Amino acid sequence: MSRATSRRRERPQRIPGALQQRPWKQFTLPYRPIEVLSADQVEAIHDTGLTILEEIGMRVLEPRARALFGAAGASVDEGELQVRFDRAMITDLVAKAPAEFSLRARNPAKNVRVGNRNAIFSSVGGPAYVSDLERGRRAGTYAEMCDYLKLIQMLDILHQEGGGPFEPLDLPAETRHLDLYYAEITLLDKNWQPQGLGTDRAIDALEMAAISLGTTREGLIDDPVFTCVINTNSPLQLDIPMAEGLMTFAEHGQCVIVTPFTLAGAMSPVTLAGALAQQHAEALAGIALTQIVRPGAPAMYGGFTSNVDMKSGAPAFGTPEYAQAAQASGQLARLIGMPFRSSNVTAANDVDAQAAYESMMALWGSIMGGANLVLHAAGWLGGGLTASFEKLILDADLLQMMAAYCEPFQVTPETLALDAVREVGPAGHYFGTAHTLARYETAFYQPLISNWDNHDTWIERGRETAPVKANRIWKQMLKDYEQPPIDAGVDEALRDYMERRKRGDSIKA
Amino acid sequence: MSRATSRRRERPQRIPGALQQRPWKQFTLPYRPIEVLSADQVEAIHDTGLTILEEIGMRVLEPRARALFGAAGASVDEGELQVRFDRAMITDLVAKAPAEFSLRARNPAKNVRVGNRNAIFSSVGGPAYVSDLERGRRAGTYAEMCDYLKLIQMLDILHQEGGGPFEPLDLPAETRHLDLYYAEITLLDKNWQPQGLGTDRAIDALEMAAISLGTTREGLIDDPVFTCVINTNSPLQLDIPMAEGLMTFAEHGQCVIVTPFTLAGAMSPVTLAGALAQQHAEALAGIALTQIVRPGAPAMYGGFTSNVDMKSGAPAFGTPEYAQAAQASGQLARLIGMPFRSSNVTAANDVDAQAAYESMMALWGSIMGGANLVLHAAGWLGGGLTASFEKLILDADLLQMMAAYCEPFQVTPETLALDAVREVGPAGHYFGTAHTLARYETAFYQPLISNWDNHDTWIERGRETAPVKANRIWKQMLKDYEQPPIDAGVDEALRDYMERRKRGDSIKA
Repeated sequence: MSRATSRRRERPQRIPGALQQRPWKQFTLPYRPIEVLSADQVEAIHDTGLTILEEIGMRVLEPRARALFGAAGASVDEGELQVRFDRAMITDLVAKAPAEFSLRARNPAKNVRVGNRNAIFSSVGGPAYVSDLERGRRAGTYAEMCDYLKLIQMLDILHQEGGGPFEPLDLPAETRHLDLYYAEITLLDKNWQPQGLGTDRAIDALEMAAISLGTTREGLIDDPVFTCVINTNSPLQLDIPMAEGLMTFAEHGQCVIVTPFTLAGAMSPVTLAGALAQQHAEALAGIALTQIVRPGAPAMYGGFTSNVDMKSGAPAFGTPEYAQAAQASGQLARLIGMPFRSSNVTAANDVDAQAAYESMMALWGSIMGGANLVLHAAGWLGGGLTASFEKLILDADLLQMMAAYCEPFQVTPETLALDAVREVGPAGHYFGTAHTLARYETAFYQPLISNWDNHDTWIERGRETAPVKANRIWKQMLKDYEQPPIDAGVDEALRDYMERRKRGDSIKA
Repeated sequence: MSRATSRRRERPQRIPGALQQRPWKQFTLPYRPIEVLSADQVEAIHDTGLTILEEIGMRVLEPRARALFGAAGASVDEGELQVRFDRAMITDLVAKAPAEFSLRARNPAKNVRVGNRNAIFSSVGGPAYVSDLERGRRAGTYAEMCDYLKLIQMLDILHQEGGGPFEPLDLPAETRHLDLYYAEITLLDKNWQPQGLGTDRAIDALEMAAISLGTTREGLIDDPVFTCVINTNSPLQLDIPMAEGLMTFAEHGQCVIVTPFTLAGAMSPVTLAGALAQQHAEALAGIALTQIVRPGAPAMYGGFTSNVDMKSGAPAFGTPEYAQAAQASGQLARLIGMPFRSSNVTAANDVDAQAAYESMMALWGSIMGGANLVLHAAGWLGGGLTASFEKLILDADLLQMMAAYCEPFQVTPETLALDAVREVGPAGHYFGTAHTLARYETAFYQPLISNWDNHDTWIERGRETAPVKANRIWKQMLKDYEQPPIDAGVDEALRDYMERRKRGDSIKA
């Protein structure tokens, strides 16, 4: 290996800022998803989910949603606010949702495809806090949120922004979502997620997306731009803001991701089969509502089942049960022909070994479970309460590794390399062969974070740890960030909309 | 969750030393292995491997091995020491090896089964150095090696000791293996691996194992105790000590794990398909030799293909290419009906995020590749040059997670929990239900390392990191270690054998 070693010494140190990443690319799973359930078991969970909807039903707090369910044939108990569903009604409605669809981005080159073997990776959405290596966990500001969004834009392995990485607590709560949307539209040119709580936030998202794409809310209907997470309040309840968001997005033909919050042992049975049956019931009810509102609207089956630590009640993520539940959820989603959403999650509070192995467990669970959208794919820390700058970079590396692992295997006369084997023969080496020289620059995955130095070199170079390297990378990236161009008129229209709404102008519902 | 929280506060802190682990259990893969290759691609690699053996062949340095190959029909070039093989000869010989077999342990309750869906996890074998949190990497002593072996004995997720965790450099090189074998036999009661270099070390292992089991070398033949790794010197060479070890163990009906050392871009082609074709050729030749020596002797197909960093020549482990190669190797092994050996590997020098994610990548690659023996499953660090005390504990946690993930899914009326869902209804919680109370203690995987505290509690309790916790665990384990009983006569016979050999008595070959 002496030739390669001397080559390394002559080479200048890699410039840390020149982010060497895999190019932007739609992710497609080339392997058969892992099946943790037998066909009979999938059927039994599906059937139990339908029984739950038939016998117990969902408590639906929003009156219009109850009325819509009732008009579509469900039995509504207005005293208990409970809605019960005939099995056939549910399966007929769910069958109307498409198995695959596209999502627009401001940059058409970044439009993405969701469903069947096509998947997208989305950045963390929804944490309350931000953290980085120097300052630890804290409430975040709008400026910091913009920095975080810039990194999401730059990381090509992220196909979608995930709905706001953390709350900008220096802005007023009532209008904060407008600033978020403006930042999502102007700092990125990729697809982004809106916030799903309540009608107003949903309409604002639709209006601003329409402006950014030079169209109207109606123009978005048959060419969707949004996936929006709607959580049921497990067990078996749908609250008012979530129902409003669901109905508004479905009315506009946007994709609602119905995701029950089924932590086994707390909000669902302590057994995974039971937790999944309940998840299935809640997801089916939500998806059915999207199809009542607009038959054929895109929707997704969200699987978030994990477990709690029964000793403390603390949620646990990236566990063996999480991976099983993710893959089982994929099977349930495929049974009913729905695209499947999963996540990259960890309970770790630091970007350490635990964060890495829990995230890997979650990613293998999700991706090999056939997830069509991996939410929180980069940046999530501390059970989802925190968006970490360093975890964002680490996760981008893990996602790139998974994408490299999912590059279809090339078996051709050239890659079988019989001529090179003939040339080298026994006891030689391949460093200098023509076959190697023609391929060595692109042959293998080049990591963002991993340090492959031998022990002495590693010591000599200061034993840089993964979080320190990630910190160095994101800071340099912010220096290198270039804002994607936007038409001045569009920008002005967005600002104008935002200002009018902040002044108190009402929306056109 | 208030009830659970108050329950936690009343509970005493868990005693750190009382190792709460999964019970000893044979590992069986319940899922279909991942197939990264199509059937045609598997066939093409297999075929290219056979072509390599036919056209180029192996350089075999050991004269008796060449003679055996020649007598079995291979074409031997005594000038170039090269042996070329007819395709049919190879496939006929390999077909004689069993698809599944058992391995004896000193404690019969720890006998294990290898092959088809049955797999075993083995501790790290072969590093030069030892490391721990306080003292870093260093040359190891016999006393430290015994400590490491005690931990391997105590960790029930390890089914087998992997051949000596590191070199005890305070002992003379010529007889060090005797002390290792004595420690492996007396400090453990589970199956252990011998060293494969040369006839003498092999015979010593067989003699001492026979003494420990109250039998003779001949008595081991049809009831094997050993799996021994034999590396080919890639590309396409088998050296004298390795050939001697291979032949000696095969003669005694012990399992030889033929493992080519095919790092793509260095000792094999830079393309994975080419590296695997060469791996396949070398593995087939080695396995064929075991079957010439003793038809029907157990053997294994070893897959170790990884890549080097083409910028520095440094070996990379736990990469996307590693996972692909492991799963492809599993397919190649299954094609020829052989049990498959893979590994848990990382290039990281510290027990950090990188060590965790590279190990997870390797474990998912290996286990979901259908590995029947995962060598270096716990303890490997720094590209295999180091056995780490803390990595041993961390890996035990990862292995337990994988074992928990591979617990077959239970879907029954009880686990579907329809009655519990009925009882709780919408908007309730499951903490206090009879269904939960009957199951909460064993419902979910209990980790060794993971910290699921929320952020404030984690800060309050001192932000303990994974390596610090692992350090605390292994030190307490050493205090708790109890040596498994051994018959005094057997112990004396072992010591006697070792002393005679150290005095210079020759072995009975």
